Amino acid sequence: MSQSTIKSFDPVSGKHLDNAFQINTLDDLESKIESAQWAYLVYRNTSGEERATFLETIADEIESDLTEIVATATLETGLPAARIQGETGRTVGQLRLFASITREGSWVEGSIDTALPNRQPLPRVDIRKYLIPIGPVGIFGAANFPLAFSTAGGDTASALAAGNPVVVKANNSHLGTHDLICKAIARAIENCNLPEGVFGAIVDSGFELGRALVQHPGIKAVGFTGSYSGGRALFDLVSQRKDPIPFYGEMGSINPIVLFDSAIANASTSKQLINAIILGVGQFCTNPGLLLAIDSEAIAAFCNQLAIEATAALGGVMLHQGIYESYQKATTALGKGVEMSVLGEGTKGEGAFGVSSYILKTTGEAFLSNSQLSQEVFGPYSLLVICKDEEELATLMMELEGQLTISFMGTEAELEAADHLIAIAQEKAGRVIFNGVPTGVEVCHAMVHGGPFPATTQPNSTSVGAEAIKRFSRPVCFQNAPQSILPLALQDENPLNIFRKINGTLTKQRL
Amino acid sequence: MSQSTIKSFDPVSGKHLDNAFQINTLDDLESKIESAQWAYLVYRNTSGEERATFLETIADEIESDLTEIVATATLETGLPAARIQGETGRTVGQLRLFASITREGSWVEGSIDTALPNRQPLPRVDIRKYLIPIGPVGIFGAANFPLAFSTAGGDTASALAAGNPVVVKANNSHLGTHDLICKAIARAIENCNLPEGVFGAIVDSGFELGRALVQHPGIKAVGFTGSYSGGRALFDLVSQRKDPIPFYGEMGSINPIVLFDSAIANASTSKQLINAIILGVGQFCTNPGLLLAIDSEAIAAFCNQLAIEATAALGGVMLHQGIYESYQKATTALGKGVEMSVLGEGTKGEGAFGVSSYILKTTGEAFLSNSQLSQEVFGPYSLLVICKDEEELATLMMELEGQLTISFMGTEAELEAADHLIAIAQEKAGRVIFNGVPTGVEVCHAMVHGGPFPATTQPNSTSVGAEAIKRFSRPVCFQNAPQSILPLALQDENPLNIFRKINGTLTKQRL
Repeated sequence: MSQSTIKSFDPVSGKHLDNAFQINTLDDLESKIESAQWAYLVYRNTSGEERATFLETIADEIESDLTEIVATATLETGLPAARIQGETGRTVGQLRLFASITREGSWVEGSIDTALPNRQPLPRVDIRKYLIPIGPVGIFGAANFPLAFSTAGGDTASALAAGNPVVVKANNSHLGTHDLICKAIARAIENCNLPEGVFGAIVDSGFELGRALVQHPGIKAVGFTGSYSGGRALFDLVSQRKDPIPFYGEMGSINPIVLFDSAIANASTSKQLINAIILGVGQFCTNPGLLLAIDSEAIAAFCNQLAIEATAALGGVMLHQGIYESYQKATTALGKGVEMSVLGEGTKGEGAFGVSSYILKTTGEAFLSNSQLSQEVFGPYSLLVICKDEEELATLMMELEGQLTISFMGTEAELEAADHLIAIAQEKAGRVIFNGVPTGVEVCHAMVHGGPFPATTQPNSTSVGAEAIKRFSRPVCFQNAPQSILPLALQDENPLNIFRKINGTLTKQRL
Repeated sequence: MSQSTIKSFDPVSGKHLDNAFQINTLDDLESKIESAQWAYLVYRNTSGEERATFLETIADEIESDLTEIVATATLETGLPAARIQGETGRTVGQLRLFASITREGSWVEGSIDTALPNRQPLPRVDIRKYLIPIGPVGIFGAANFPLAFSTAGGDTASALAAGNPVVVKANNSHLGTHDLICKAIARAIENCNLPEGVFGAIVDSGFELGRALVQHPGIKAVGFTGSYSGGRALFDLVSQRKDPIPFYGEMGSINPIVLFDSAIANASTSKQLINAIILGVGQFCTNPGLLLAIDSEAIAAFCNQLAIEATAALGGVMLHQGIYESYQKATTALGKGVEMSVLGEGTKGEGAFGVSSYILKTTGEAFLSNSQLSQEVFGPYSLLVICKDEEELATLMMELEGQLTISFMGTEAELEAADHLIAIAQEKAGRVIFNGVPTGVEVCHAMVHGGPFPATTQPNSTSVGAEAIKRFSRPVCFQNAPQSILPLALQDENPLNIFRKINGTLTKQRL
C-alpha cells in the first residue's frame, strides 16, 4: 500500500515539517473535475460584479491569514519574511486588479455589426460577438512563487475572473502554504454563495495526477509555470489529446542584458546586476542569466568590479531538493570542457540546501560554438559573454531562443544607435527593458510576461497582467439573435456601460 | 526521375486541363522561406498605411484579372460562374477590410501604464505594450474556396495585414486559379516596392513540401483550412517541433440546426434547409449536416415535405477526385448496419464527379449509440435526428464535438424557453445562429468562424473577420523606454491617433 500523506520540507533545516497532507487519488481527481464541471454551469453565468466580489473576498481572506501564511511560506521556502510579505501583497493586488477588470466589464470585447437589410448583392444579418469563459481550467503552481504564481496566483485569478472553475495541482514545495490558501478560497466561496466546485485542488507525491489532469476531457485549458522539462512533458500530453486544448506554459528564460559602453563604465552597474542575480537566490524566471558586452578597454575594469561584487555576494538556500541538486550539478561542472572562467563565487548560504552564487565569463565565439552555454541554470548564476564586436553580438542575439525579457543598458544615444539589436530583441522576447533589470514583473494592464518558445508555449499571450484573462476565454458570436436572447454585454441599450465595437468603432454608446 | 510539372483538373469533363505548373522541390521551399525571412526585416516595419495600400493593390490586381480568374476557377472547380464571382468579391472585400483595419491602426491594442515613481513599497516604471507581427506564416489553401480561403484568402490577408510575409502551399484542385492570384500579388508587390519575399508559393504533387513547411524553423505560425485528417496530421507535426508554434487549423463541422415546433410547422423550412444543404454541392465547412427536432404530431408532415424537397434537389459536381470518392463511399454505405433511412435522394449531377444529395433520418437513440453518425460527410448530405423529448435533445447536444456553428429555428418564445440549449450551443460552437442557416459567413468585425476542437485547433480565435489578424501577431512590451525608441503606436503624442489603454482606460487622447 502506498503512502497516503505527505509532509512539507524546510530547506534550511533539511527536515520535514511537522505536518501531513492527504495525497489524492485518481478518484479524487475525477470527483474534483466533475464538481468543477457542475460548478461551471452556475459560475459561467455570474456577473462581472459577482466575480469581482468573489476575487476581492479571496484577497480579504488571504490577508486575514497573513501572519500564518507568511510564517508557513517562509519555513517552506527558506525565503525571507519580507519577500513573502511582498509576494502576498502582489497576490492580493493581482486578485483585486482582476476584480476591477470584471467589474468594469469591457474585457469581453463586445463587438456588434448591425444588419444591412438592403445591402447588395446580399443583405447582412446582425452579428454580435463577445468573450465567454473557456471551461474548467487545470493549473500547476510554481515552486519559486509560493503565492503569486501558485494556488491563488495569476493563473487562478485570471481563470476565475474569466468565469472558469479551476482545479489546482499543488506544488509540493509549499504544501502548507497551499493548504492555507485553499482554506481562504473555500471561505470566500462560502461567503459568496458559490458552488464548492468553483475551486478544487489536488496533492500528489509524483506525476500521475498532473498527467491525468491535463488529459481529462473535462479540462478545457491549462496554465503552467515551472521548468522546461515539466512544461514540455505536459504540453506533449495535451497535444496528443483526442481534443487538444490551449496549454499556457511559462517555462523560463535566461533574460539577456546587453551592456553598452556607458553601462560598462558606470561604477554602479556591477552592484545592480549582482543584486538582481542573487535576488530570491536567483530563483526567478526573470533572473538575468546572460550578460552581453562588446570588448573594449573598459571591460577589464568592469570585470574586476563585477568579480569583487560577485565574491562579496551572500548565498542563500534553494527552494527544494530538486532545484538544489540541479544547481549543484550545473555549477560543479562549470568551466569543464568549455572555455569559460569563474569571475566570482559568493559566500555559501547556510542551511541544508545552501548554495553560493556564481558569475562566469566567456567569449562570444565560445558561446556561439557551445549551445550548452545558453541553457538556463536556475539559481544565482549569470554568464558574462564578451563579444569581439557588434556584429558578433548581433549574431549571438539572433541565435537566442525565445526569452521572457531582454534588457539594454546604455545612454539614449547608444540605444538609438542599436535599433537593429532592439528589433532583434522584440522578435525574441515578450518584454524589452531599458536601463533596468528584468527581475520584478509589474502586475498592470500593459505587462507582457511571455515570449516565443521555450519561454512560453503560446507566444501570443501573457501570464501576468490584465491581458492574462484572455487566455481562459474564447469568442462566440450571435447571428440574428432577439434582444431577449442576447447577453447583457451585447444588448442594444448597453446596460453594462462597457466599451464595444459598433461596426468596427469603439464606443460606450448604446445602439 | 519524378514528374516535374502537374496539370489541373476539370471535375465536369473528368480530364486534365491544358496547362502545366512546376512542381517545387525542397530546395525551392528553402529558398522561398529564406526570402520570406529577409523580406520580414523590411515588411514588419511598414506602416499601417503602407500595408493598407498593399492589400488594396492586391485587391485591384485581382479585379483587373477578374474575367480570367472566374473562367479558370469555374473550370477547375465545377462551381457556377456566379458563385466564383461572388467569392472573388468576398476575397477582395476581405483584403479591403484588413486594409481599413491597418490604416485605422487601433488593432495593435496599444496599452500604456505610466510610471509611479512615488509608489510604496516600490516605484512603478513606465510599461507600454502593443502587438507586433509574429514572423513568416505558412498557409494552406482550401479546396472548397478557390479564392476566399486560398492563395489570397482570409489567412493570407490577415497575415499580411499583421506585417508577416507568407508562404502558401497551393491547393492542387485549383492550380490555375492559384497561379493567376500569385501573379496578381506579385504585381502588387512590385507596384508597392516591397521585397519579393513578402509572398511566396509552392506547388507539390504530394505532402512532402507541406510537411516541411510547417516544420521549418523560419516559419512562426501556420494557417490551415481543410479536412480533419490533413489538419490533424499537420497539427501533430507542429506540436512535435523543437519550438512548437501557433497552428490555426479550421477543419470543419457538422453545423447542427435545432428545429423547434414552429419551424417544423412552417411550410418554407424544408426548402430553406435543402437549399443550404445543396449550396456549393454541400462543400462548405458550414454545411448543415445535422438537423435536430423533437418528436411531435407535426413531424411526419415535415418529413414528407423534406423528402419532396430532397428528391427534387439538383445534384452537382464535386471539387476533386478525393472529395468525390469520399462522398461516394460514405453515401454508398448509408443505412447499412445502422438504424437510419433515406428520406430523399436528389437528382445526380452531370459530369465526371457528379453526385446526388441525400437526406437521411434517424432517432436520437440511434444517434447517441453510434458515434459514426456524428462524423462529417463532406458534400450535399444531412441527417435529420428525431429526439423523443427535450431531455434527449439536450443530451445529444452535450455529446457533440466542437462545431463552427449551431443554429436554432423557432419563435422568440420558443428560443427563450430553450435557454439551456442555447447555453450548450455556446460551449460547443463559435457562432450561434437564430432563424437562419449556417452557410454564408459574413466578413465583418464581430464574426467568429471558429470553435472548440475539432472545428478548429485554437478555440480562442476566428479565421474570418477582423479579429483574424490577432492570430498572426503577438504582444511585446517596452519597459522604461525613451520616446525615441518607442514605436509610433506607443509614443506620448499618439501620432497615429489610435485607441490605446492608458492606465487601463481606452482613449484616443495623448499622454
